[in-house]
Amino acid sequence: MRDPDITLSAGPTMAYPEVLAAQAKQITYHYDPAFIERFRRTEQKVAELLLTQNDILLMQGEAVLGLEAAARGLVQPGTSVLNLVSGVFGKGMGYWLKDFGAELHELEVAYNDSVDPADVERYLDEHPEIEVLTVVHSETPSGTLHDVAAIGPMAHSRGVLTIVDCVSSVGGIEVRTDDWQIDIAVAAAQKCLGGPPGITLMTVSDAAWERMRSNPSAPRASFLSMLDWKEQWIDGEKFPFTPSVCDMHGIEACVDVVLSEGLEASIARHDLCARACRAGVRAAGLELWPRSEEVTAACVTAIAVPNGLTDVQVRGHCRERYGVMISGGQGAGNLVRIGHMGPAADSLNPVVGVGALGRGLKDLGADVRIGDGMEAALAFASDEGARAMTRRGAHGSR
Amino acid sequence: MRDPDITLSAGPTMAYPEVLAAQAKQITYHYDPAFIERFRRTEQKVAELLLTQNDILLMQGEAVLGLEAAARGLVQPGTSVLNLVSGVFGKGMGYWLKDFGAELHELEVAYNDSVDPADVERYLDEHPEIEVLTVVHSETPSGTLHDVAAIGPMAHSRGVLTIVDCVSSVGGIEVRTDDWQIDIAVAAAQKCLGGPPGITLMTVSDAAWERMRSNPSAPRASFLSMLDWKEQWIDGEKFPFTPSVCDMHGIEACVDVVLSEGLEASIARHDLCARACRAGVRAAGLELWPRSEEVTAACVTAIAVPNGLTDVQVRGHCRERYGVMISGGQGAGNLVRIGHMGPAADSLNPVVGVGALGRGLKDLGADVRIGDGMEAALAFASDEGARAMTRRGAHGSR
Amino acid sequence: MRDPDITLSAGPTMAYPEVLAAQAKQITYHYDPAFIERFRRTEQKVAELLLTQNDILLMQGEAVLGLEAAARGLVQPGTSVLNLVSGVFGKGMGYWLKDFGAELHELEVAYNDSVDPADVERYLDEHPEIEVLTVVHSETPSGTLHDVAAIGPMAHSRGVLTIVDCVSSVGGIEVRTDDWQIDIAVAAAQKCLGGPPGITLMTVSDAAWERMRSNPSAPRASFLSMLDWKEQWIDGEKFPFTPSVCDMHGIEACVDVVLSEGLEASIARHDLCARACRAGVRAAGLELWPRSEEVTAACVTAIAVPNGLTDVQVRGHCRERYGVMISGGQGAGNLVRIGHMGPAADSLNPVVGVGALGRGLKDLGADVRIGDGMEAALAFASDEGARAMTRRGAHGSR
Amino acid sequence: MRDPDITLSAGPTMAYPEVLAAQAKQITYHYDPAFIERFRRTEQKVAELLLTQNDILLMQGEAVLGLEAAARGLVQPGTSVLNLVSGVFGKGMGYWLKDFGAELHELEVAYNDSVDPADVERYLDEHPEIEVLTVVHSETPSGTLHDVAAIGPMAHSRGVLTIVDCVSSVGGIEVRTDDWQIDIAVAAAQKCLGGPPGITLMTVSDAAWERMRSNPSAPRASFLSMLDWKEQWIDGEKFPFTPSVCDMHGIEACVDVVLSEGLEASIARHDLCARACRAGVRAAGLELWPRSEEVTAACVTAIAVPNGLTDVQVRGHCRERYGVMISGGQGAGNLVRIGHMGPAADSLNPVVGVGALGRGLKDLGADVRIGDGMEAALAFASDEGARAMTRRGAHGSR
Repeated sequence: MRDPDITLSAGPTMAYPEVLAAQAKQITYHYDPAFIERFRRTEQKVAELLLTQNDILLMQGEAVLGLEAAARGLVQPGTSVLNLVSGVFGKGMGYWLKDFGAELHELEVAYNDSVDPADVERYLDEHPEIEVLTVVHSETPSGTLHDVAAIGPMAHSRGVLTIVDCVSSVGGIEVRTDDWQIDIAVAAAQKCLGGPPGITLMTVSDAAWERMRSNPSAPRASFLSMLDWKEQWIDGEKFPFTPSVCDMHGIEACVDVVLSEGLEASIARHDLCARACRAGVRAAGLELWPRSEEVTAACVTAIAVPNGLTDVQVRGHCRERYGVMISGGQGAGNLVRIGHMGPAADSLNPVVGVGALGRGLKDLGADVRIGDGMEAALAFASDEGARAMTRRGAHGSR
Repeated sequence: MRDPDITLSAGPTMAYPEVLAAQAKQITYHYDPAFIERFRRTEQKVAELLLTQNDILLMQGEAVLGLEAAARGLVQPGTSVLNLVSGVFGKGMGYWLKDFGAELHELEVAYNDSVDPADVERYLDEHPEIEVLTVVHSETPSGTLHDVAAIGPMAHSRGVLTIVDCVSSVGGIEVRTDDWQIDIAVAAAQKCLGGPPGITLMTVSDAAWERMRSNPSAPRASFLSMLDWKEQWIDGEKFPFTPSVCDMHGIEACVDVVLSEGLEASIARHDLCARACRAGVRAAGLELWPRSEEVTAACVTAIAVPNGLTDVQVRGHCRERYGVMISGGQGAGNLVRIGHMGPAADSLNPVVGVGALGRGLKDLGADVRIGDGMEAALAFASDEGARAMTRRGAHGSR
Repeated sequence: MRDPDITLSAGPTMAYPEVLAAQAKQITYHYDPAFIERFRRTEQKVAELLLTQNDILLMQGEAVLGLEAAARGLVQPGTSVLNLVSGVFGKGMGYWLKDFGAELHELEVAYNDSVDPADVERYLDEHPEIEVLTVVHSETPSGTLHDVAAIGPMAHSRGVLTIVDCVSSVGGIEVRTDDWQIDIAVAAAQKCLGGPPGITLMTVSDAAWERMRSNPSAPRASFLSMLDWKEQWIDGEKFPFTPSVCDMHGIEACVDVVLSEGLEASIARHDLCARACRAGVRAAGLELWPRSEEVTAACVTAIAVPNGLTDVQVRGHCRERYGVMISGGQGAGNLVRIGHMGPAADSLNPVVGVGALGRGLKDLGADVRIGDGMEAALAFASDEGARAMTRRGAHGSR
Repeated sequence: MRDPDITLSAGPTMAYPEVLAAQAKQITYHYDPAFIERFRRTEQKVAELLLTQNDILLMQGEAVLGLEAAARGLVQPGTSVLNLVSGVFGKGMGYWLKDFGAELHELEVAYNDSVDPADVERYLDEHPEIEVLTVVHSETPSGTLHDVAAIGPMAHSRGVLTIVDCVSSVGGIEVRTDDWQIDIAVAAAQKCLGGPPGITLMTVSDAAWERMRSNPSAPRASFLSMLDWKEQWIDGEKFPFTPSVCDMHGIEACVDVVLSEGLEASIARHDLCARACRAGVRAAGLELWPRSEEVTAACVTAIAVPNGLTDVQVRGHCRERYGVMISGGQGAGNLVRIGHMGPAADSLNPVVGVGALGRGLKDLGADVRIGDGMEAALAFASDEGARAMTRRGAHGSR
């Protein structure tokens, strides 16, 4: 099976060349002083990326590890938790919370919409027993976004701890950990950072550590334990177990790429690629999945699959015929997604995505204005004001 | 901080060049058909490496994840488990087992020795309530080996399920999963396979799956769940969560390297490097840590640190002055370890290890015959019969 | 300065990933037995690629080295040479021939045309004093092709030695050295082979060697000497000087890629990408540079620059605004070229080329139907019969 | 054929990891603005390395190209040239000079010695007709050095132009182009710079350009022409032909490595490795090839092969049995050479070289004190004053 020509998926997405080069570096012993230095240095860079003074915890597994660890760490049987649900990741967090014994409260909307912060505020006011709030910032399967800038402070001011899944937002959509008063932010590199999966990037507030320490259900002596890392590594000099040395090379490299481009420039680039992609999709006569532009996330564009076709079929056809890998709906609905994250959020990639999807749908019998779609996406890139669509200064100066 | 010139640690060790090249390959979406094909293909190759018809489970975290998952999967409160202890990893398994509610039985020996299989047999006969046996094949911190070829069948014939930690043996020391009747073997790539850490390579017997399925304490819907992988991926087509795409590239590459060299050739090479290293250490006037040559493992050579010095001090000095990274005792005692695993188990590397350690100890005041040590290790490499000490045919033909 | 997002130039073009991986391999001593073996093995593969039993000579510099060396080797003052001129490379060969003292005969056509083989035959019949014929197979700056299949045998049957510049054709356009009776074919890797510049791939017939040996003007003891290589390396065991070890890694890798895809499949893929590109260009309302489709080469599509604009301006704009690197006319006229060679001759790349050029021209004031152009190019890729447009089986199976 | 475990040859030697990573970067079109910028930037860095204000010319072929081009550029029939001969490269220059029509004067010494600057001065005074002086700084095949610091000014003050071959000295042995008043310095990357072969690094003074311009025999419109590069590229914006893009990536990377370590630190490191190697060789009871320590070069250690053995035999045995690639005498005598250049000039590599050679010779019947040799070399590395033997700060901070 040949590799794809281009990956415009919902992540893992393509990695920056600098990341691939870093992952080819010789592996070192984890107690090698150069590796220890790299680990500490990477933590500092991640803090810079997540705009926080809180502890940085780099858990050694895909972001699902960090999400589970965070929920287990803060929840014990009987804890009242408010979980916001606008898609499959939000829904999944609810299942976990119940498993862990939480008193589960949920605010749920259709999977093409987002929970209104005003509803959250009202709910918190009406339920002062809520101790923890969980929210997915960017619901990747639906291509929608929650307004965490509003929700975070609401929770904090009421003494409610927050766990925010910002896996697919960090680097491409604004995430301000401290300004937004997030207790535990859970991020990852395989989306807008253009890095490898396999590591969770987390921030943890003192309040979260405190709750965890006093929680008898919080994992200890376990791969799932945040406390092990806090006690042995963050406050000590010992790794709880062997870290993923190779992925750590990739993590540092991708954070370097984003910080060297500039976090704001990276976010602006993702935003413009998203706008180009949405404009192209609509000009092609296709329908966006999210209810309105206001709730769209800038990392992926979700498109409703025309009647009579399925997401898996469309995705497979684009991959086979055109070598372009896009994503299906992953349970959120009959939709496909064009990702524009990391190096995929650059220049003509949204045009390629619109073209491959449009042509693929037409091959399968749908009515699509392919040329119009591509031309509309491309027009975005040509706009003087849209120069941020291409990454600048990232390679050549080194 | 400069990188080391050479890593002769107890692992992670240096990766083969083929592995580093593979890790530089572009990252793909995990549902890309090329990645799915790669994942399935890699499972088959791992089965070939572990000599088994059992299911292969590639858990997406360092081997500690697999060990914890296996123990949690087979144990529930009240399960009687016999744990063999000859070092810190065996000891650690006991702590876990108690945490998980097991009735813990232990056969423990000094950390420079191995448990005698005859003692195991006697114990199993005297304790028919034992349901599970846990054993570390190669106790890396001590440089010692358990005779799993003998112990596996003893357990199996008594209906006792086995969890064998063969993290640092596979690829360098014989591991015959099916012949030895191991239920769950837990291996990893960052030792004798010369691959990346970050993935656990596991084999699971039908009996183990059956026990796990009927175990209400076995993790489900969790990063720690083997059953999730069994149901969703091994017997299905869905990943429980995003796998570590980049590390998977490295895993396939390192298994390819070993299979293309030939598993037996790889094992013979590790054995000869180990003998060269031990000969060099003794000729230098230093003392091996293991009680006798019979209990030594071929992956690392453990050497007692002379009086008045500490392992951390010696390790740090060799790294700083000579750029050679060796390992300390990791809690097993005042010892240092020269690793000879993967590409470190090749040609003159044991000579370099003996030289750096010998010279480092002399710098610190010990009495060492450095030249004699290096010459003795080198003599091994020159022996006609010792040709297997260098890896053949691995690169150039591609 | 940032690197381009995509290179669709006339070459050097992007290299295959396998090539880049090979170029990252450790450099060896040139007399290392593994390198010597690699060099000999690569020669055999190049012979397979060029369909010849003649000697393969890998000169250690860009193809211009091989062209100059060949001309100097066969020509001495007074030699009558017929040089076919349809563009800047053909013209340049004439200047050299005069410098080297040849009696120069030329058949020249406009730089958007090719010399008719019938004219060649007539000329050779009328000028029996011609000893050598020189022809550029694919005139890259013009995007045109000579019919060497016809011309080669005409020359051979009259005892005329041929030097054929097939730098930009090999791997993407049929080149049959022995069937076409070519005496010296001069090829390179940085075009349709998707490899590095820096090495000339040559084939040399016995008749060519014989003439060279008896030519007192043929370079000897020089970087320009083919005879040095013949005597010391091809018929001996000594390199005349240090070969370019790193580029040789890349050369073997790119030839491997093409042979593993299949030479015919590679050629079919280039042909289809060229047809897609030309269809797109015309649908966009732009004009091809070559006089007719019959004379176009499959490696690059040359497009006339609309009035009032210049090739350098258009090229610069596409690069700056869209990150797409195309080529200008390099002296052949006011034209730009979209390359589709090696990995650039794949899947949607011609669509990207048409889009970037079309949009760029529109930005600069030209009248272009961008969407129509892209849609037309894309239609080609979607055609069932056009499946050869994407490279198959090249990556994943390794 | 397996690749070597370690290359301690006389060059090409192993490349720094940074170089290998750079060579894996995607190839760009040569007129891509990022490549043009890289080319100009690299020239500036090479000027910094060669301590010169003169023009930098990066000829696109192995250093032999630059040497031939320089000699052809300055010499015409009848030019009186003084050529210093202390080995095969000096001797070879003489053959060329005669070929090019020079009136050849030579000062020749045995191939284990160097020409005394006092003899040069006397000769120049006695032969005022001398217009050009050619000298090899480091005669790699013999492991000897000429005192160019003394010779350069002698020539300059008498109006004699100098061509200095510093291929194996630059980066490992002091070369001060402007202070030493060198007109044309010819360097390369595959020796002490730890880079790729395939590019000549040259400096050219105004006086040299002037002579070349007025020399009707100087190559023009040729791969051998320095003037083409001067007129089209250095003073223009056009490449005479396609440069070796991939090797240029490696060149910039290796120069970056050396400049970031610090040129003086790099030279000190090479010097100490050379002293360690020579000490080891003597302690092993072997004999250095150079007449005395004063004439040794720091890039390679040349060792006389004991009676009854040949250099090719010893080299082959070390490579086959121990995977260590050293070099033979290349026509300079029955000697072998351990290279310590670039990454081979680091830490324990000289110890490995002494060990492999010593053990290899012993295998073949010679009387060698292997342990003493290795211990003596190692003692050097352990010396407090010898800390410069390892490269510092080169990797980890990036």
